[in-house]
Amino acid sequence: MTTTSTKYVYFFGNGKAEGQGTWKDLLGGTGAGLAEMTNAGVPVPPGFTITTEACNKFYENGKKVPEGLDAEMGENLARVEAAVGLKFGDPEKPLLVSVRSGAKFSMPGMMDTVLNLGLNDRSVAGLARMTGNERFAWDAYRRFIQMFGNVVLGIEKSGFEEKLSALKAKRGAKLDTDLSADDLKELVKTYKGLVREKTGREFPAEPTVQLGMSRDAVFNSWHNPRAVTYRRLNDIPANLGTAVNVQAMVFGNLGETSATGVGFTRNPSTGEKEFYGEYLTNAQGEDVVAGIRTPRPIAALGQEMPLVFKQLSEITTRLERHYRDVQDFEFTVQESRLYMLQTRSGKRTARAAMKIATDMVAEGLITKEEAILRVEPNQLDQLLHPILDPRANVKVIATGLPASPGAASGRIVFTPEEAVIRGATEKIILVRNETCPDDIHGMDAAQGILTARGGMTSHAAVVARGMGKCCVVGCEEIQINEEARVFRVNGHEVKEGESITLDGSTGRVILGEVPTIEAPLADEFEVFMRWVDEARRLKVRANADIPRDARVARRFGAEGIGLCRTEHMFFAEDRLPIVQQMILAVDQPSRVAALNKLLPVQREDFIGLFREMSGYPVTIRLLDPPLHEFLPKREELMTEIAVLKATGGDSREILSKEALLNRVESLHEFNPMLGHRGCRLGIVYPEITRMQVTAIVEAACHLGKEGVRVVPEIMIPLVGHVNELRNQKNLVDETAREVMKRAGVTVEYLVGTMIELPRAAVTADQIAEEAEFFSFGTNDLTQTTFGFSRDDAGKFIRHYIDHGILEKDPFQVLDRGGVGQLVAMGVEKGRKTRPKLKIGICGEHGGEPSSVEFCHGVGLDYVSCSPYRVPIARVAAAQASIREKGKTAGSDQR
Amino acid sequence: MTTTSTKYVYFFGNGKAEGQGTWKDLLGGTGAGLAEMTNAGVPVPPGFTITTEACNKFYENGKKVPEGLDAEMGENLARVEAAVGLKFGDPEKPLLVSVRSGAKFSMPGMMDTVLNLGLNDRSVAGLARMTGNERFAWDAYRRFIQMFGNVVLGIEKSGFEEKLSALKAKRGAKLDTDLSADDLKELVKTYKGLVREKTGREFPAEPTVQLGMSRDAVFNSWHNPRAVTYRRLNDIPANLGTAVNVQAMVFGNLGETSATGVGFTRNPSTGEKEFYGEYLTNAQGEDVVAGIRTPRPIAALGQEMPLVFKQLSEITTRLERHYRDVQDFEFTVQESRLYMLQTRSGKRTARAAMKIATDMVAEGLITKEEAILRVEPNQLDQLLHPILDPRANVKVIATGLPASPGAASGRIVFTPEEAVIRGATEKIILVRNETCPDDIHGMDAAQGILTARGGMTSHAAVVARGMGKCCVVGCEEIQINEEARVFRVNGHEVKEGESITLDGSTGRVILGEVPTIEAPLADEFEVFMRWVDEARRLKVRANADIPRDARVARRFGAEGIGLCRTEHMFFAEDRLPIVQQMILAVDQPSRVAALNKLLPVQREDFIGLFREMSGYPVTIRLLDPPLHEFLPKREELMTEIAVLKATGGDSREILSKEALLNRVESLHEFNPMLGHRGCRLGIVYPEITRMQVTAIVEAACHLGKEGVRVVPEIMIPLVGHVNELRNQKNLVDETAREVMKRAGVTVEYLVGTMIELPRAAVTADQIAEEAEFFSFGTNDLTQTTFGFSRDDAGKFIRHYIDHGILEKDPFQVLDRGGVGQLVAMGVEKGRKTRPKLKIGICGEHGGEPSSVEFCHGVGLDYVSCSPYRVPIARVAAAQASIREKGKTAGSDQR
Repeated sequence: MTTTSTKYVYFFGNGKAEGQGTWKDLLGGTGAGLAEMTNAGVPVPPGFTITTEACNKFYENGKKVPEGLDAEMGENLARVEAAVGLKFGDPEKPLLVSVRSGAKFSMPGMMDTVLNLGLNDRSVAGLARMTGNERFAWDAYRRFIQMFGNVVLGIEKSGFEEKLSALKAKRGAKLDTDLSADDLKELVKTYKGLVREKTGREFPAEPTVQLGMSRDAVFNSWHNPRAVTYRRLNDIPANLGTAVNVQAMVFGNLGETSATGVGFTRNPSTGEKEFYGEYLTNAQGEDVVAGIRTPRPIAALGQEMPLVFKQLSEITTRLERHYRDVQDFEFTVQESRLYMLQTRSGKRTARAAMKIATDMVAEGLITKEEAILRVEPNQLDQLLHPILDPRANVKVIATGLPASPGAASGRIVFTPEEAVIRGATEKIILVRNETCPDDIHGMDAAQGILTARGGMTSHAAVVARGMGKCCVVGCEEIQINEEARVFRVNGHEVKEGESITLDGSTGRVILGEVPTIEAPLADEFEVFMRWVDEARRLKVRANADIPRDARVARRFGAEGIGLCRTEHMFFAEDRLPIVQQMILAVDQPSRVAALNKLLPVQREDFIGLFREMSGYPVTIRLLDPPLHEFLPKREELMTEIAVLKATGGDSREILSKEALLNRVESLHEFNPMLGHRGCRLGIVYPEITRMQVTAIVEAACHLGKEGVRVVPEIMIPLVGHVNELRNQKNLVDETAREVMKRAGVTVEYLVGTMIELPRAAVTADQIAEEAEFFSFGTNDLTQTTFGFSRDDAGKFIRHYIDHGILEKDPFQVLDRGGVGQLVAMGVEKGRKTRPKLKIGICGEHGGEPSSVEFCHGVGLDYVSCSPYRVPIARVAAAQASIREKGKTAGSDQR
Repeated sequence: MTTTSTKYVYFFGNGKAEGQGTWKDLLGGTGAGLAEMTNAGVPVPPGFTITTEACNKFYENGKKVPEGLDAEMGENLARVEAAVGLKFGDPEKPLLVSVRSGAKFSMPGMMDTVLNLGLNDRSVAGLARMTGNERFAWDAYRRFIQMFGNVVLGIEKSGFEEKLSALKAKRGAKLDTDLSADDLKELVKTYKGLVREKTGREFPAEPTVQLGMSRDAVFNSWHNPRAVTYRRLNDIPANLGTAVNVQAMVFGNLGETSATGVGFTRNPSTGEKEFYGEYLTNAQGEDVVAGIRTPRPIAALGQEMPLVFKQLSEITTRLERHYRDVQDFEFTVQESRLYMLQTRSGKRTARAAMKIATDMVAEGLITKEEAILRVEPNQLDQLLHPILDPRANVKVIATGLPASPGAASGRIVFTPEEAVIRGATEKIILVRNETCPDDIHGMDAAQGILTARGGMTSHAAVVARGMGKCCVVGCEEIQINEEARVFRVNGHEVKEGESITLDGSTGRVILGEVPTIEAPLADEFEVFMRWVDEARRLKVRANADIPRDARVARRFGAEGIGLCRTEHMFFAEDRLPIVQQMILAVDQPSRVAALNKLLPVQREDFIGLFREMSGYPVTIRLLDPPLHEFLPKREELMTEIAVLKATGGDSREILSKEALLNRVESLHEFNPMLGHRGCRLGIVYPEITRMQVTAIVEAACHLGKEGVRVVPEIMIPLVGHVNELRNQKNLVDETAREVMKRAGVTVEYLVGTMIELPRAAVTADQIAEEAEFFSFGTNDLTQTTFGFSRDDAGKFIRHYIDHGILEKDPFQVLDRGGVGQLVAMGVEKGRKTRPKLKIGICGEHGGEPSSVEFCHGVGLDYVSCSPYRVPIARVAAAQASIREKGKTAGSDQR
């Protein structure tokens, strides 16, 4: 950006613009597009763009526009007047303008457009004379009051519509067009009365006042709830601000030689190369969207206005070539003359994105690298999960957060136990206020999960995404009565056993079953992913705990397992009682006895996993969660005991529950996240480490004998001090030696650690003396670096993002400024001690594109993510590689 | 240390030693002292020291001594033989040796000495011939078997004592000395039989075997439970290892011209300059300690052996001059010839330390700087808290951890409510399983606190130290039955209302009331502290929440308040209901209404505090804990509701409790330490910040009008991102402006932040753009850097220290390797942005000497600690300054 900070307004018109197409930061997407089109000789009505900087100043100054802005606007308005030969507010030849918001990224949640601005009781007469169409002029006037009243003054649309309907009824008119000029004059009067009544003031007659108010309304709309929500859902920073575009009006409603329409240069849904769009004759832009009249397909314009159609085709084809991307455009035909009002890169489905990218490479329009940069990695999610049949009729009863994509139908249950029982024979949806690690088996048994609380990083969300399972969270409207086995929402009551459908891509909760379809992977997908794999340096692994997950991961191209969480094996229904026995053991021998019962099942787990990943590395994390997670809940026991006592219950039962409660109490922790977990378990109870390592190495030996190559990477969790790792590594080596000696086989294995505590990052040089690999656990690292509990922070993180304190949820997008510094430090210090140290990441961030880019940048060897995100990570890794090489510039898009 | 790593044995004798007095790391304290005395020409029996390195190798090699050690020992034994003209194991002129452990720091918990080693059935005859005293020889032999049997072979002392008693009974002997040589021969036989019976082996006859076994026993003793406990209590790292001293025996029991004794060059209890000690004629060292015969005061030696006494006085005076410190020495007189067996700096009480240090300066023996280095800062604690009258007879019923020094007696209560009621009229001791923030008012009302659980950094411990209140924690022996209002311990039952006494300096729990005395501050204290203040650069502030604490802090020399925790003001009994009303408010207006009720009381709090600290800075931290800490406990409500339901309770009561539970549930957090607290409260509920700032600034304005100078430093807690601070700083400034405008007065204030999250440390450059001061909250910073919850980590931290994984509890002593790196980074980055940034520390570490030294080193401006630790911090700060200047070297001591 080479502009000075005091210029707030950029003119475009007469074939030349002060701005450029690349200045989206300053001019917003629309403003930059208008400038670019003007410079490219495309017919664009003249106008000017007020910069995003002006918007930011507006907020900094306590909602006052910066000094000099009004004067600049005045000068540029004069240039527009000169360009079109009209005058703003003139009683003879009045200039009318449109006022539109335009942020860097298209935001449908923001302010609507105000059209026909500049009309008042005097200029409307001029417009009538100028167009020779009094009815048109008064219709424009009443439309203006209506839009301005709604958008700028905040009066509900329905207020105006009622007045219009009343007048139509009085006149016996069916359509708006049945009203005469005089009717519309009367309507204008009525509208003004409505404005007076609602706002206590006269409708502003002075055009510059109208313009100033509209501009401020656009600025204010940047923080309206819709915009805030949209930004949050789309990861758009709150500090960008919006630009304002003021442009001379052209009219598509001046009769049958006028028209207005929208279109795409290719089909945005399928990606097919076809001219795609719709238009209406004798209409203003809003009419196309409003759906009052059904627009006609754009091809029809070829018959109706062949010259205009030809010109439009040529211009849009030229624009696509110019931008080398699909264009989404708006146009107006005023008395057979074509004007382009907007052009921008067209949003498209994942399927279309893939098709368009590969087609454009074939057409020689873009390179493979550019094609890779054109696909938004996150979109691939759509391709990989089954989707609701779009033709189905659905009854949406609530909407939550789209936590894990895909679609699922099933009968609802309210407890994990019920889920396991019912889930064995039918499809079920688990409905909970929130989930916890205890619920895993129930979640596993369910087709989908619906929670009333929690955000995009809540337990349910994370686990479901890990399972590739459809999940809707934070659906706060539903009220669950677990006891009565029913939930209520918006007047509906849904009982256990009734069916619902979840749409994990939109957050919709739908009554009954809706058919789903496996979104088929097109040939383009294979071609595209081959290019991707050629382009990337980072390896991509998957987080997978069981053979089934590993299989999915391999299918999606995972090059190993980056994280196998062994605790998930402990929660399985047949094992939990043994695990509890182990925890409740009063001494080491009885603990060892229980562990010995777990050994064979753990070994089978690993054999299954290793077999699936034959030849690829498998990173196994030793037991991580605090032991109390495997025991009954403290408050439940307390309640049971109190009730038993109050009701004279069996004293032996009371005693035995009290004994259990005592043990639970002794394990109780105020902050389990910072408690007795991770390697702290294996250090205090070395027999647990010994059992797990025995199972791993025995499994490897077993397969080694079969000739299956296995490379286990044994990962010690939550290390903060090199001595912790040293202690556990010695134990691992000692155990492995014993097992291999017994088995008479030697297998290769590595011992490494998670870097998930700030202390591990800052002492990574020491830790690397013992560690053969590092895996950044950025979930925990984010928790401790920020001091945010992932389970609790949802509420205030949302507030933070809404209020611009944080740009993004650091649990979703790796916080480069803080956590990233620690990661970079860990990599640098670790490699200083051990230059060939293998380093990866296994937090949720491993499947998030911007975080993957960061991982590429700091020199990690691989990222690991949930199986369904593997293709996303592959694309993101390729994009990072390409961007770094700087082979292409500026064609990045969101 | 300039020795090579392969030399494990250092000889001393013949007026020359291979080692030096400063090599305590390598030779241990005793070994270094023997070397130094030998080199100084003091008569020391020759011998050699096996290094601590050999001990560490022993552990590294799985309890095998390093190669070459046996050979080295053999060579050095030969040098000893040559020096004394005797031969190890010789039947004619046998050399006998003593074997003693000797770590860097004196550790009474370790292995006892083995004397007379080298005796067997053959050499005993030689000893008899050589000394012309058969009885002596056989007495030495039986003593050797007894000591070796107990210390090396692990046979209980009582086993030998029974045999001895039986023989005495048989012979009708009263004293050991009544037994004849033949009796002792028989006893040796009996002892050998006992060894055979207990160990299944013959007593080892070969002297080199005896020596090897004793050496290994010393090495093993490094990890015996007593040593481990001693190290933990005295903060001695587990990885130092112990040396072994082997020395030619001299005998104080060769008749009336022989003697043995111990002494100090000055009185270690009062510090008076007097020759102090005791001795026994015709005795071995152990007899002095064993207390079988009452030793005589050392002055008596002047009459009994005037020449020896003169020589001893001269030598010890010389040693005191040489070491320039009080010496604690051991000596033996063998047939009128004096031998020095040990000398070391004498341990002393705080009172003595102060007196000795100031006296020695007056004597010109040491400089003021050296005097300051001579006082162990932590010892000052003894001077500042009332102590139990040492003359009282006490009945100790249990011992816990000495969490907060001083002494307190009172009637016991089991709930904070009862504490408040009873505490109004009598002295009480609060007895709890553990305490929580809810209990503050009860703790405040109590004279002392006793808990059954928790460590030295538990809530009770920290708060009690902050209050300067006597506290014993983790007294696991006591079993509290809160319902029955009684605790049981070791057969005692203590009911509510009965009196106990706590000794916070030793952890003793005593039945009944024991009189206490205010330990009077000697004149030396004032003199000494004046020197201290001249020497230090760091300022010392206090953590104080209420005027009373502030007064104590000023008395102890605090130069401001570094941390005023405003939440403590919220827990006061009269305010808690209003606070709860504020939290339960359904909307902002009702929240503001509740806050308005808190405003005047909060203002009065600050007026009191400011008045007390007139002219000094006062740092006020805005509300920090999560709001649910102020509400009833979730599990208690759940239990109450369940019981009410089960027993058909009043439905309206159930409903109202359920409503409350709902709110409590909605605030419930899994990890409150990482939850909605700190500045996150003030950001989501700006009205809380506004109320607190209004109270602070109104108080400052009020006093400003009176002419009292007040400099409030408003501190925003738990900032992780500069935007959080910016948000709150704007709110503070805006509120302050309004208040000052209303009051018509301008007051100076600063806005700064805690640096207590890793993210704050790594982004300190950005945070310093807004912060006018930093205060490192190293409690929380340690929690997040390590991922340790202070409330939960006690158990495994203890295991870690016992097993050498951590040297010290990082909540007690600042972890320089990890947390310290972040502190240093925070200082450097903060000052890069704002060179004059004022930086302090307000965690528990601010009063811990080694941490204070660290704070000095990284350039902080001040430390802040609990009022009673202010003098400690002042001394530690002075020591840090002096050490840095390098004015003195090597005279540091623990």
